[in-house]
Formats: sequence, structure tokens, C-alpha cells
Amino acid sequence: MSVTAARGFRAAGIAAGIKQNGSPDLALVVNDGPGDAAAGVFTANRVQAAPVQWSRRILADGTARAVVLNSGGANACTGPQGLADTRATAEKAAGRLGLDPGQVAVCSTGLIGVLLPMDRLLPGVDAAAGRLSQDGGEDAARAVMTTDTVHKTAAVSQDGWTVGGMAKGAGMLAPGLATMLVVLTTDADVDARALEGALRAATRVTFDRVDSDGCMSTNDTVLLLASGAAGVTPAYAEFAEAVRAVCADLARQLVSDAEGASKEIRVEVVGAASEDDAVEVGRSVARNNLLKCAVHGEDPNWGRVLSAVGTTSAAFAPDRLSVAVNDVWVCKDGSVGEDRALVDMTGREVRITVDLAEGADHAVVWTNDLTADYVHENSEYSS
Amino acid sequence: MSVTAARGFRAAGIAAGIKQNGSPDLALVVNDGPGDAAAGVFTANRVQAAPVQWSRRILADGTARAVVLNSGGANACTGPQGLADTRATAEKAAGRLGLDPGQVAVCSTGLIGVLLPMDRLLPGVDAAAGRLSQDGGEDAARAVMTTDTVHKTAAVSQDGWTVGGMAKGAGMLAPGLATMLVVLTTDADVDARALEGALRAATRVTFDRVDSDGCMSTNDTVLLLASGAAGVTPAYAEFAEAVRAVCADLARQLVSDAEGASKEIRVEVVGAASEDDAVEVGRSVARNNLLKCAVHGEDPNWGRVLSAVGTTSAAFAPDRLSVAVNDVWVCKDGSVGEDRALVDMTGREVRITVDLAEGADHAVVWTNDLTADYVHENSEYSS
Repeated sequence: MSVTAARGFRAAGIAAGIKQNGSPDLALVVNDGPGDAAAGVFTANRVQAAPVQWSRRILADGTARAVVLNSGGANACTGPQGLADTRATAEKAAGRLGLDPGQVAVCSTGLIGVLLPMDRLLPGVDAAAGRLSQDGGEDAARAVMTTDTVHKTAAVSQDGWTVGGMAKGAGMLAPGLATMLVVLTTDADVDARALEGALRAATRVTFDRVDSDGCMSTNDTVLLLASGAAGVTPAYAEFAEAVRAVCADLARQLVSDAEGASKEIRVEVVGAASEDDAVEVGRSVARNNLLKCAVHGEDPNWGRVLSAVGTTSAAFAPDRLSVAVNDVWVCKDGSVGEDRALVDMTGREVRITVDLAEGADHAVVWTNDLTADYVHENSEYSS
Repeated sequence: MSVTAARGFRAAGIAAGIKQNGSPDLALVVNDGPGDAAAGVFTANRVQAAPVQWSRRILADGTARAVVLNSGGANACTGPQGLADTRATAEKAAGRLGLDPGQVAVCSTGLIGVLLPMDRLLPGVDAAAGRLSQDGGEDAARAVMTTDTVHKTAAVSQDGWTVGGMAKGAGMLAPGLATMLVVLTTDADVDARALEGALRAATRVTFDRVDSDGCMSTNDTVLLLASGAAGVTPAYAEFAEAVRAVCADLARQLVSDAEGASKEIRVEVVGAASEDDAVEVGRSVARNNLLKCAVHGEDPNWGRVLSAVGTTSAAFAPDRLSVAVNDVWVCKDGSVGEDRALVDMTGREVRITVDLAEGADHAVVWTNDLTADYVHENSEYSS
């Protein structure tokens, strides 16, 4: 599991003192090669944290040898000093590992608008480098947690090669991407172009379709590093499917651990004229606060689904819309359907199906219920 | 105050038994003329309740003589029976008042997807007609309340003419319009075209800039009826300003009474390249659940403002954005500004100012904090 499931990778996770509570807060992932191909996908937010700006730039040549990740501070909206701090972090790791700074990606997560405590972070990079191990993947996954309650790892192995990864993310989850840091590794021998293709295809249908609270981060980063240590080059389709499976597994774990959530809501839109329509409708439903409250209350309030569908530009006729909650079609043809008393919403997973009755396309978007715990957690996060 | 402040109008509000708890639930507003000019603005939601479809149609000729409003059921997503029920309501009122059904607008509010109890509603129309009075405006305003905790009325008088009105709305408040029913009346002698112009101009900068929870209703309706009883035709600009003032007053009352809210948040965007940019940014900030939680916790978490700005298409450079909370510029030029400890958020009103540093346009959008009470109220609404 995790980023050390694939051969050719070492990792570490330590407590550098960035977080005031002494929890692990600094992770290091190193690709020992022989290959150094890499790809990255970053937040679509126009306000981008310093580490996102840095990592995007150093990934431009399709290579990377190491990733430094810290929790306890996002280093976003921190101006020129923030950029200098990210660069110093990469330089510190590069010096310690015998690399060029341009081979070291950086990821940060935590509160926006606060400078990182570099007097603790830089010695932390040293300490993490001294603890690098082929079994360090779990420690690394623990060191990137913020409001996560569990660490998230996944791996798929087949035919002598592996794709593994770790993720963090519990709040500010929204498309483009769900707010998260994700590092994926593989020992397959895959070039940068194939890595990029597989990664973009995978994130589009996994992390990009998680919308926990509609809030888009300044720090989202998903990296994929290939060591080539397995000496195998899989068929592209097989490799892309493995990357998708690992991303789907991690995305599902993000939904399961979203801040304050008591329900996981699977919104499936069927009968759409296009996949774009299906995604637009799915997101609109997934972002509807009133519906998210209703699901929390185990109330199959399908009127809130229809009112959300009605705000989209998707092709549909109001009198042909149907909605099922946990497979009971409580709304048929835009009006009252089966008895809502038949719906059992006591389980943790709730399935909402919207049939647009326009075509054959479909999509699934995941979200969570809106709870008093979410409010409490996010009322107290920075103070 | 209310819809009977202007001469030529009578109103009533009664308990017809539509609500199970015996609260007032049926209002009637009648224009005794001599004029019958009227205008309406309706929800932009593509899923529209039966009364919205009906009222839109009967307003097309620029006239209306009466409005029947009920709480206790939205008559939305109720199919052909729902439309038949709305028509029967208009016919009942028309018969009792000696009007044509095409002169009677209908508004409904409450749970979506449930047929109205016509066996109680139609006798209620009779009863309300029997109670019509020139002092009935307050009773009418009480009868349209749903989760409102107070009834909302407003009026402006000058130079012998008056614009008055009532509103209901506490949840599902979002642009296009804020979810609400509003009836405005005037005794000024104004033709339908001027009514329409004044009403559209007013709602655009008032109700359309209230975004309590980002959820758009199926039932939003704002009606303006003119009796001409004052025998005065004001200058258009004066009249439009009076309509805007009454709408602004009512919109402010909606924000004050939003479900579960403990704070009223005034988001002002300045330095915008265009008014559209200012409104887009204001809405994005106003809809950010994480920010709304932070305000609830009295936490000047400006990073959440910047992350919301970053999701818009407005003209701005990330390193020139500035944000003030209650006039303390906690973010300057995209980075850390004045000490956040200087911000006092203990009052009920919180002012967030975003300076895009691109131009001279500006806009204000109002919202509320997100609270555990909002979650509780909306988890239990229909069950």
C-alpha cells in the first residue's frame, strides 16, 4: 500500500514541529529510479499557493525525483516570502538527497495566509531524509493529515508492476480538484507523456467528481512518479486503468472521511444528453445545502433535487424528470411518484438517481451530508 | 405599512387549515382600482411551480386585480393536478370577487411535491374574501410565513402616493430571486410598462443580491399592483426609487430572518472592472460554506475569501487582491495584511470587502452565516 508499494521508492513521515500539537507534519517521498518521469495535476483555482506554482513549474519537463509535503500550513497567499520558502524547502531536500532543486516538488496543506515556520520545517526535511525507508509509505501518509481522521493509502498490483498512492483531504473538497494532496507512484516503466495522459484521465472521473462542500482549494495537487524499477512497460490502457482504480479508491476514502459527515451521497445522473450535462446536474445536486441537510435528516426530500436540477443548463423537460432515493422512484415525470415512506435512508451510503430522460449519457458525483459537526469543525479551524 | 398602505387595496390573512398546526396560511390581496396595471418577476429556476406558471401567464397582459397566496404547500412538481388546483384557486377567488380568473394571480410556498388540500384551501378563499379590509395588510403578511420567525412589511410614502409591500422568505434564498413571495402595491397611477421597468430594476439590485444558502426556489414571485387611487402619476425615476427602497427594506428583512442565522454578512466588492464581475465575485464569496462557518465562529479567515474569488472568471491579479473584514485590511496585495487580532466580529453584522484592484465598479451581496441551527432546521423540514 501507499507510495512505497511500488519498487524504487522510499518515504518518511515525521513530526517537525510545524503543527503545534506535535502530530506528524512533514513527509518526504523519493524516487530512486532508475527512471524519473513524472506528471502533475493542479487546482483550477486562480489563487494558487506557492508550492503549487513551484511544482507546476518543475514538473513542466516531465521529471521529478522527490516530493516534500507538509501539513500545518498551506503557504497560500503568502506573497514573495511564501515563494522563497517553497524554493528553500526544495533546495534543502535537493542538497540532502544529491539532487537539483528543480527535481523536487513541494506540497503544503493547512491554513491559508500564514507563513510556514521555516526554522522548524528545514530541520524537519533533514530529519525526514534520515528516516527514508522502503516501508515509510504509511508514515508519509500520516504526516499529511490535517482534519483527516484516518490516513489514506491504496495500491493495485498486476503482472509484476504496481501503482500505489497516498492522499489527504477532508474539507474544501470540490471539483477541480477535490481539495487534496495526492502522491501516486509506480515502478512501471512509463514515459512522462503516458503518465500525464493516464493521470488526467483518472482525475477527471475520480477526484474531479468529489464535491464535499463546494469549496475549491488553493493547494490541490496530484502527482504521479514513475521509477521504472519493475522493468516492465504495461499497455497504456492497462496502466491507465490501474491509475484510475487507485485514484477511485483514494477519492472514495476522501468522501468517507469528509469533515463532519454522517452520510456518503452518491448522485448518479442517467438519461443525459451528454456527459457534460450529467456532470453539471450531478454537481448542482451535490452542492445543494438544503438537500445535504435533508439527507442528514434521512428525509427523501426530492423537491430539493428538482430545484437543483432546475438551476442547470442541461437538456431536460421538467415534466419528464424522475428521481430515485435508494432506488425508490419518489418522483416520476416531474411529479409525485412512489411512496416516500418506502425509502430507507438509515444506512451510511445514500444513492440519489436523477433521470433526465434525454439520452444515454451518465455520470456519478460523490458528496456528503451537511451536518452540525461540519459547522462546528469549520467555525473553529483557524482560531 | 404592508400591502394596504396604498389606497385602493384590501387584504386578509386567515387560517384555512392548510398548515396542520393551525397557523395562518391563506392571504388575499385585492386591488379595488380604479386601475388594474400589474407586473411580475418570477424565479429563474427551470423547474417552476404551478402557481408560477399560472401567474406568469395571467400577468402577460399587464393587469391583475387580486392575488391569492398560501403557505403550507408549494404546489411545485405536482403535475397536471397541481396546475388544475391553481386554476381552481383563481376561479374560486374570481367568482367570490366578481372578477375573471385571468385577473387573479396565485402564489404558493411550502414543501415541494405535495398536492394542496383543496378541500380546505377553497373554503379558505371564501373566508378570506369575507374578511377583506383596508387594515388587512399585516394579517396577510402573517399568513404567508413558513419558517419565517417574523412577518415582513415595508412602505414608502411621498407627495400623496405610496408604495407598500409584504414578503416572506427565510430559506432557499438565492439569486434569481431569493426564494420568496413578495406582493407590492401602489396607489400611484402608473402604467404596466413603467411598473415592469421599475420592478425589474429594483429586484436586480435587491432580492437578486440576497444569497442566504445558494439554493434557488421553484416558487419565487414578486408582484407589483397599481390601483391608481391616489390619482397621481409620479416621475418615473421617483417611482422607481420608491419601489427600490421598499424592495431593499424587505430584502434586508429576509436576510435578518434567514433560517438559523446568527450573523448577517455584507459582502462588498469594489475595484471591479465591471458590475457583473463585482456581482460574480460577491456571490462566490457569499456561497462559500467554509467562509460562512468561519463568520459563524467569528474567525476573520480571509484565505477562504481568496479561495472563493479564485473560482470566478472576474478580472483580477492574485497578487493585487485585498480583503477587509469589518474594515481591517487583513489581506493586502494577495498576502498577509493587518493583524487579524484587530478584527472585532462580535456584532451581528459582518462586513467583508474585497478589492479587485481592476476598476471602479462595485456591488453588494448579502448572505448569512452557516450554523448548526440551519442544519437542524433543514434536516427536519419535511419529515
